[in-house]
Amino acid sequence: MNNQLFLTYSPLPREELVQKVKESMSDKRFQHVLRVEEQAIELAKRYDTSIEQASVAALTHDYAKERSDEDLIHIIVTQGFDQELLPYGNAIWHGVVGAWLVRKELGVVDEEILTAIEEHTTGSATMTTLSKIIYVADYIEKGRQFPGVDEARLLARTDLDAAVAFETQQTLNYLLKRKQMIYPKTIETYNRWVVI
Amino acid sequence: MNNQLFLTYSPLPREELVQKVKESMSDKRFQHVLRVEEQAIELAKRYDTSIEQASVAALTHDYAKERSDEDLIHIIVTQGFDQELLPYGNAIWHGVVGAWLVRKELGVVDEEILTAIEEHTTGSATMTTLSKIIYVADYIEKGRQFPGVDEARLLARTDLDAAVAFETQQTLNYLLKRKQMIYPKTIETYNRWVVI
Repeated sequence: MNNQLFLTYSPLPREELVQKVKESMSDKRFQHVLRVEEQAIELAKRYDTSIEQASVAALTHDYAKERSDEDLIHIIVTQGFDQELLPYGNAIWHGVVGAWLVRKELGVVDEEILTAIEEHTTGSATMTTLSKIIYVADYIEKGRQFPGVDEARLLARTDLDAAVAFETQQTLNYLLKRKQMIYPKTIETYNRWVVI
Repeated sequence: MNNQLFLTYSPLPREELVQKVKESMSDKRFQHVLRVEEQAIELAKRYDTSIEQASVAALTHDYAKERSDEDLIHIIVTQGFDQELLPYGNAIWHGVVGAWLVRKELGVVDEEILTAIEEHTTGSATMTTLSKIIYVADYIEKGRQFPGVDEARLLARTDLDAAVAFETQQTLNYLLKRKQMIYPKTIETYNRWVVI
């Protein structure tokens, strides 16, 4: 990690950014965030993109995950967000509103990072390599255990787009089986990356 | 069937409407259309809505199904349809453009019928009883054979909304398993009728 390069993506040096993130969540989630960072850096090396940018995006991707529903709803209602977000709950809010909070409270302004945070639970039809890395790293970090995670890890090492497709299809199967809400953007991701 | 009431929904008497529909498609599909009509009338009686309206909607629901892609695309491009329809193919076009053709060529102007035609392959979050009847009748007419059709038939006899939910979930499972495109409106249908 190059400290000077890190500062082109975050106004705070890594140690201070890590401290801010740590203070915003439970230790359990903070450990997950560190594992996502480790995984994201590995993928950034493999797919030849900035490890410092991947580090900042990974460290901040769940920054809003433990905010209260009340806080997140207040931001959605008052800050010009699409009001159709409201029924979807924290699972969707923490990405979209999270990007806004990371800019406002942590001073990160890199658009690729903010978009990667925004898209990390839903993906999108227009994901950059960084977005794909955060989306996939969050799914396969070494603490994850679920049927299919080994296949996802294998795909991530050989074909990032295939890993995005696999994760998206698995996620939709999971939601459908449990009759849980599906956010329309997840279908855009499916139509772009899964459909053959 | 009351002929006078039929004419409040179709400018053509039933025999002439049937003839027009017959001429627009293969005999195999025409037989399907007649079975959908029979099933739709049965559901209209059960759920206490107009059998004449159900008949007109059922007879015309697949009116555009055998139009060429070229014709359907031409209509989408020149008649003010959402251009995002273009990637989805006949499976989606024949409902949306079909409603437009049924109005233009068959003179049907009843908005509930036109909406039921439009929605018959995707459903919607705002389906009327008529829309639900056409959506479900198309799925369970007595010629249909697929895993789950008996459960769908049973649900249709006892709870129309549950039949809509079952069909929507099965359809999404089918598309997902085969990695086929999912039209965003199908997800609106899912979020409204399937999610618990």
